[in-house]
Amino acid sequence: MNNFTLVFETDTKKPMYEQLYQYIADSIKSEIFEKGERMPSKKSLAAHLKISVNTVEIAYLILVQEGYLKAVPRSGYYVQKIEPHIGAPVRAETEETPKPRPRVDFRTNAVDVGSFPYSTWVKLSKEIMYSNPELLNAGEPRGDYELRESIARYLAEFRGVKCSARQIIVGAGIEYLLMLLTEIIGKDKIYAVENPGYSKTERIIKNAGNEIKYIGLDEKGIRVDELEASGAEIAYVTPSHQFPSGVTMPMDRRAELIAWAETGRRYIIEDDYNSEFNFSIKPIPAMQGMSGGGRVIYLSTFSRVLAPSIRAAYMVLPPELLNVYERNFQGYSSTVPRFEQHTLNAFISGGYLARHLNRVKNIYRKRRDRLIRALNGSARISGEKTGLHILAETPFADNIIKEAAKRDICLYSLDDYFFTERKKTDTLIIGYAGVSDENIDELKDFFIKE
Amino acid sequence: MNNFTLVFETDTKKPMYEQLYQYIADSIKSEIFEKGERMPSKKSLAAHLKISVNTVEIAYLILVQEGYLKAVPRSGYYVQKIEPHIGAPVRAETEETPKPRPRVDFRTNAVDVGSFPYSTWVKLSKEIMYSNPELLNAGEPRGDYELRESIARYLAEFRGVKCSARQIIVGAGIEYLLMLLTEIIGKDKIYAVENPGYSKTERIIKNAGNEIKYIGLDEKGIRVDELEASGAEIAYVTPSHQFPSGVTMPMDRRAELIAWAETGRRYIIEDDYNSEFNFSIKPIPAMQGMSGGGRVIYLSTFSRVLAPSIRAAYMVLPPELLNVYERNFQGYSSTVPRFEQHTLNAFISGGYLARHLNRVKNIYRKRRDRLIRALNGSARISGEKTGLHILAETPFADNIIKEAAKRDICLYSLDDYFFTERKKTDTLIIGYAGVSDENIDELKDFFIKE
Repeated sequence: MNNFTLVFETDTKKPMYEQLYQYIADSIKSEIFEKGERMPSKKSLAAHLKISVNTVEIAYLILVQEGYLKAVPRSGYYVQKIEPHIGAPVRAETEETPKPRPRVDFRTNAVDVGSFPYSTWVKLSKEIMYSNPELLNAGEPRGDYELRESIARYLAEFRGVKCSARQIIVGAGIEYLLMLLTEIIGKDKIYAVENPGYSKTERIIKNAGNEIKYIGLDEKGIRVDELEASGAEIAYVTPSHQFPSGVTMPMDRRAELIAWAETGRRYIIEDDYNSEFNFSIKPIPAMQGMSGGGRVIYLSTFSRVLAPSIRAAYMVLPPELLNVYERNFQGYSSTVPRFEQHTLNAFISGGYLARHLNRVKNIYRKRRDRLIRALNGSARISGEKTGLHILAETPFADNIIKEAAKRDICLYSLDDYFFTERKKTDTLIIGYAGVSDENIDELKDFFIKE
Repeated sequence: MNNFTLVFETDTKKPMYEQLYQYIADSIKSEIFEKGERMPSKKSLAAHLKISVNTVEIAYLILVQEGYLKAVPRSGYYVQKIEPHIGAPVRAETEETPKPRPRVDFRTNAVDVGSFPYSTWVKLSKEIMYSNPELLNAGEPRGDYELRESIARYLAEFRGVKCSARQIIVGAGIEYLLMLLTEIIGKDKIYAVENPGYSKTERIIKNAGNEIKYIGLDEKGIRVDELEASGAEIAYVTPSHQFPSGVTMPMDRRAELIAWAETGRRYIIEDDYNSEFNFSIKPIPAMQGMSGGGRVIYLSTFSRVLAPSIRAAYMVLPPELLNVYERNFQGYSSTVPRFEQHTLNAFISGGYLARHLNRVKNIYRKRRDRLIRALNGSARISGEKTGLHILAETPFADNIIKEAAKRDICLYSLDDYFFTERKKTDTLIIGYAGVSDENIDELKDFFIKE
């Protein structure tokens, strides 16, 4: 034990066990302690160094963990030969390598950052922050009442949703709410999703341990005959602007779908994510209101209207599920910062949201028209009446993607949105909210006038 | 059909089907249409009113739904006698009634709102908002890299946590992260929780469909012998400051616990929620670092240091679970607003967090000392060395709670934190972070000097 010449430093943040660990590890690496050598017992080493047995125990534990020592029950600790790869603690060795962003990206989930109402937002949030310090403490689990009231009024006026503030749960994004919802509905259920459809939500439902049925689409949206045959208990749909096909589900299909849910006491999850951007037709009100709301869970978000990085979505629970929520989920703290909740509330109730929406709808409509012009009449366009992306069908779709990539422009194929087997659709899905006019005009080079 | 004298309004937001629905509903209620009367077919009514069949279909559907009409297959729609309670759409009739807040509340989850670094926070967030509009678009799913880097450095320096930024997942609160974590670990597992313990996390684990084992405590924290016997695969623990008992788990118990996890390839969830507030002893580093990090998931939050309403927590995944995350959960958008992420990052990396922490630790230490004085030596105090609540054992505990309530002061009993059977502990659990000095002094009236 006389070769233990360790002097503990006291003017450091490093705890004693770590100093001891380091000392022994270094001694083993430099072969001062040799392979096979028996280490002093914890008790005797502690006495020798005038430290607690605990400290030695921890140091030994780490050394065993890292492969420097081997513990032999009822005998003691022995020095191991160190293989270089064991020495390091268990950790992710490499950093993730973020994919570089393409120069121009026609993805569907971007927004026009230039039109964000900075000055209003900053002004409102500053006012709220300074005027009510109590907002620093925890608020209501489903979101503060004032915000839910504003959302209920907004939904009644613009989307025909019939609900009280009590039924609304505010949360940090549709994905979080869907996680919560699958738990409220209960485990081991059969969910139907649209195919092609939104892979993120499919993944969330699946990761929560549910079975998924993939239901095809026709020109009216999800096929209710297939749905009926699938045995699904819950259908996740995007009726305002089916993702990715862009189909707006007409009234008769909605009625069929509601009948499906009503008959079997099944549920419809109505993801109304893109409904605010309705350009040319009178918006169809939400299925939630149409059905009376007993079997429809309405889901929407402010991320599309304001910005994806503002994490504020909401769902409207039917009474049956609200009961479950109030019984078992009331304790879950809200996931949306209260300052942001109240800023959003001021933004809605002050009429800023409606004004902002009008403004961006104009910007997006112009951009969409420009995009359609840029395609030079060389593609069959659909899904252009709602939402912030269009579909463009052309026999040259695959080639266009390749050619655009050479100029660091990212375009996407509808083929990639099928869950079961990839289909050849010859169709591009082009999101235009996050790109400039100049970027759009570049597309002219790939879409050749016929 | 001649009694259909409906004229559609065009200068309203109300869709035509709703106007038609309203007209028929009113006519039935005022008995213009009589019970048993057969309605015109959808097609003929549509032709008569010069509207689409869809519109009529929807109106009829709602009328059936609400009980005004009855659909008879292959025959038509018949007017029903309306019972008053059927008329309303299915919705939560009553609003929730929020419990009024007590005048003084010694709850454990409040913070001192007065010491929040308003001016720094507002300044930093404004700078970030204006300087980088790209932050409006979606960021990295696990939280932006810069913030995770800062957290990794902070954790290494202050908590001895060994990890790379890649292993860190930032999320809107510990509860959200725990939901996500239970999904990453996989379904139908057996979890151990401390008893008494934190009811919120127990509920989250249970709601995710897992089995719970309740493990008792001794003076060192969770009992590893009971844990071993329970068959649990994952143990959720709060070693820095056990909630609610306030016990700081000593090194030897930590070593035992780590050995339990290592042997059976089990997991420890180390919730380090209160570790920043360590008043008198050298803080014990996290088990994550001590163990090498292979079997420990480290969880912590900025809610205690900054404010509960700021929803920013994080977890450190061991490599095995990181693999699962990267395979199946990468698509989950971050739940923390990016502006807030970058404000927080600037706050940490600019050294503001360390300074803020020192300042509030001083405030809290003084408040804790004042609280201990206010108890007049008439209770046995424990758990005072870490965290923002203490335990006070006195045979008069129940009576003190009753007497305080008469003056609208809310105190809590440790009895309520047992999951299985309520125990009689004669112990109060007193959170002091969210109350004023004057509030604390009021307690003198209830704790009588011996």
